[in-house]
Amino acid sequence: MGRRIDLNCDMGEGFGAYRMGDDLALLDHVTSANIACGFHAGDPSTMQRVVGAALGKGVRVGAHPGLPDLQGFGRRAMRVAPAEAYAMVVYQVGALAGFARTLGGSLNHVKAHGALYNMAAKDAALADAIVHAVRDIDPGLILFALAGSEMIRSAERAGLRAASEVFADRTYQNDGSLSPRDLPGSMIENVDTAVMQVRQMVERGTVRSLQGVDVPVRADTLCIHGDQPGALAFAQKIRADLTANGVEVVAPDRKRVA
Amino acid sequence: MGRRIDLNCDMGEGFGAYRMGDDLALLDHVTSANIACGFHAGDPSTMQRVVGAALGKGVRVGAHPGLPDLQGFGRRAMRVAPAEAYAMVVYQVGALAGFARTLGGSLNHVKAHGALYNMAAKDAALADAIVHAVRDIDPGLILFALAGSEMIRSAERAGLRAASEVFADRTYQNDGSLSPRDLPGSMIENVDTAVMQVRQMVERGTVRSLQGVDVPVRADTLCIHGDQPGALAFAQKIRADLTANGVEVVAPDRKRVA
Amino acid sequence: MGRRIDLNCDMGEGFGAYRMGDDLALLDHVTSANIACGFHAGDPSTMQRVVGAALGKGVRVGAHPGLPDLQGFGRRAMRVAPAEAYAMVVYQVGALAGFARTLGGSLNHVKAHGALYNMAAKDAALADAIVHAVRDIDPGLILFALAGSEMIRSAERAGLRAASEVFADRTYQNDGSLSPRDLPGSMIENVDTAVMQVRQMVERGTVRSLQGVDVPVRADTLCIHGDQPGALAFAQKIRADLTANGVEVVAPDRKRVA
Amino acid sequence: MGRRIDLNCDMGEGFGAYRMGDDLALLDHVTSANIACGFHAGDPSTMQRVVGAALGKGVRVGAHPGLPDLQGFGRRAMRVAPAEAYAMVVYQVGALAGFARTLGGSLNHVKAHGALYNMAAKDAALADAIVHAVRDIDPGLILFALAGSEMIRSAERAGLRAASEVFADRTYQNDGSLSPRDLPGSMIENVDTAVMQVRQMVERGTVRSLQGVDVPVRADTLCIHGDQPGALAFAQKIRADLTANGVEVVAPDRKRVA
Repeated sequence: MGRRIDLNCDMGEGFGAYRMGDDLALLDHVTSANIACGFHAGDPSTMQRVVGAALGKGVRVGAHPGLPDLQGFGRRAMRVAPAEAYAMVVYQVGALAGFARTLGGSLNHVKAHGALYNMAAKDAALADAIVHAVRDIDPGLILFALAGSEMIRSAERAGLRAASEVFADRTYQNDGSLSPRDLPGSMIENVDTAVMQVRQMVERGTVRSLQGVDVPVRADTLCIHGDQPGALAFAQKIRADLTANGVEVVAPDRKRVA
Repeated sequence: MGRRIDLNCDMGEGFGAYRMGDDLALLDHVTSANIACGFHAGDPSTMQRVVGAALGKGVRVGAHPGLPDLQGFGRRAMRVAPAEAYAMVVYQVGALAGFARTLGGSLNHVKAHGALYNMAAKDAALADAIVHAVRDIDPGLILFALAGSEMIRSAERAGLRAASEVFADRTYQNDGSLSPRDLPGSMIENVDTAVMQVRQMVERGTVRSLQGVDVPVRADTLCIHGDQPGALAFAQKIRADLTANGVEVVAPDRKRVA
Repeated sequence: MGRRIDLNCDMGEGFGAYRMGDDLALLDHVTSANIACGFHAGDPSTMQRVVGAALGKGVRVGAHPGLPDLQGFGRRAMRVAPAEAYAMVVYQVGALAGFARTLGGSLNHVKAHGALYNMAAKDAALADAIVHAVRDIDPGLILFALAGSEMIRSAERAGLRAASEVFADRTYQNDGSLSPRDLPGSMIENVDTAVMQVRQMVERGTVRSLQGVDVPVRADTLCIHGDQPGALAFAQKIRADLTANGVEVVAPDRKRVA
Repeated sequence: MGRRIDLNCDMGEGFGAYRMGDDLALLDHVTSANIACGFHAGDPSTMQRVVGAALGKGVRVGAHPGLPDLQGFGRRAMRVAPAEAYAMVVYQVGALAGFARTLGGSLNHVKAHGALYNMAAKDAALADAIVHAVRDIDPGLILFALAGSEMIRSAERAGLRAASEVFADRTYQNDGSLSPRDLPGSMIENVDTAVMQVRQMVERGTVRSLQGVDVPVRADTLCIHGDQPGALAFAQKIRADLTANGVEVVAPDRKRVA
């Protein structure tokens, strides 16, 4: 990668009569949409609508599979066996791929959601299960996962293309991991500081840790949190700043497979 | 069609710890498996296991989408808009196609389940929604639907291949429709009578109605009810009888599409 | 009833991370809260929070049971047998009563939700099932149901106290029924007209039908739709107008039972 | 307690069309029924049927609340906050109490299910949440929980009556805890050994540990696993043996509260 980065955002996280985030507005500012697949959020009609909107705006469509826990929005850690995780990822990615196909598009990537994302970042067996599910359903897909995580290592082992995800609103530790949320200083609330952190990541491939050390980090895609107040303004600002500084904001390209 | 018929059976209708029917045994006797997709029954691990078993035994794999009503096993009629039905079929067929793909196979057909099957048999708008969903996700798929129903007519309009489904254990009316279940004589409990009815359907393209008239019926595929006691014995008997009488028991072939 | 009316509002209709309506603000303006019970909306934590808030503000707490259809928000008609409806009402009312008890209060009423409310308004067998469930779980409860409906008649047969519900934003037909939504003029969008309709109902026990005839209607409780824009302003205005015109805005009292 | 013990069994764990265990037959052999409440298993109609059957046979009725994970049958550990656990227990106990009331009975006890039972056995905060939920909904209820667990200690702190549960088919460690399932020798498969273990527990208040030491254990209630083959035969045998040896098989009595 050079001076380029993808902006991704979780979308389609409503359910039936419930709304979550302003998907249509955010689609004007991001380059990849991770679309919920019905387990932690999302229902068939919502999926269809959001896939259609993303394709219509030239935003890359990805599946955003989660744990089967609508009540907890997929954020509660749950002891799932790797084989269960494999099957639930195939199911959800398959369902979303169905909508992409009926709408004349195709899936570009997969990003696990919430507790599934976090658990798999640290658990190699779970990471392998998810990675193998993605590869087996379509080896051209790109896995979006936490930079430096077990998921990235698993994708490398499996020959699956991966995009390392970074965060603008979280600080990092000296080992390149995210600062735990209960640590003072874990969150970056100042927008300018957040923008600066992203630029450093893209331009120099490093991040200034909470302890003040510049540590290497790979930044292929930046997570925009769509469900937070100010999400839209932040997306606009970060994109404008990156573009103004010569960073190309663009989604990575999936591999073409037969 | 000539002197040939497909034997199909609903499968994969367990959920989590719950079991329903003896899928593995039935796979030795049928030629098409309609596999539940998680709405009325079925969960990702079950779907994976049953798709794998069917492919392993050379049985054709189809999606069996239902209404989102696990508690009612998809048997309770529900007022869903055609657009909702479209999206729920795309979702479920896509999910099952994911398992077929990871297991090196492909989907051959789609058969709606329970109340969705029955409602769409009589409601042209709902039938069109389901048919278009199937066609849009994969135009080579075959639609299994009640002989003489709106579903069959809709598939013809849409250019989708259809297989007309008949029943061995139900009697028919003079107009070719199934006798309503609350009508005396609607069910055929004698196995030999059931076998004879099927043979007449295949060999002559007619069925003797409850009122005693031979009426035309198209019989491309016969439904074997796997959740009933004696299902296995019946499947064996009907297959043996058909074969002995020179009827080929074979699944229809999906169209190859680019 | 004399010159008094209850203002009721559906509440607690969020689910997990999802929000619906501004319950806390509305509690300052209504006298009865119908709280969702987990089937069409609502989860245990939401129920606990809203029951506590209602009790804290002196608003009467009622159960608002619905069909098991979170995806459709309980608005899709569904063929449920009376025995199923009985059990699903006992379940939901029992669950909500649990929260009332732990919070030191008690249930005052039950109002069915959405499609269950509408189906039971016209179907005597379904109405009886719901009414018997309410009576069997607590004979002191008040049933809130559409004025003039089968539910009201069923409650009378069963000796259950009922409150006839009217609407400010819907017009009525000459037979006292609500104008179907697809009929031009079925909705009242002008707030002053809505307020006038309510006052006529309370003061004279009649409503001017869409056809221009004054027909009798019993108005014990008025439904405030909390999920609509302007709900809060409307609740304030209607309450102020009623109070200014000498109408007491107060909830009916449940029977004390041993 | 003296020479008496309760035999309890999880029941009502079907869901819709799905069956689990032979509840009716087991009711002839146990003295307490723990009835699933709709989260890990159970639906309103099943709950009503099983509560009615238990009351009809003089078996004490208890609530068996679980995690909201039907797909995992409540057996997958899940990170739920104590406040969430409190609310989900109130909800489920309230729902089951509704059926007891409509059927003219009352709840006697509560026993958490699966992963919720196991997590709360070791986690004091979670144990307190469950215990407080039970006490707040009805202070006369008896908590069934693993002998020697945090749940038992929490009930003591809260002034809630508890019944210590023991197992016939599991071995124990020197500290009185159950042998982990992955330890060789953790399961007792010989029925006579199982029966002997129970008799020692009841008669002497001790259990011979896997390491061969007699360690104290309190045995108020014995868990009969209804979903295992041979459950019925085992229940009959253990009851006959206990009775023949002068042990009274009887459920504990809840406190009467105003």
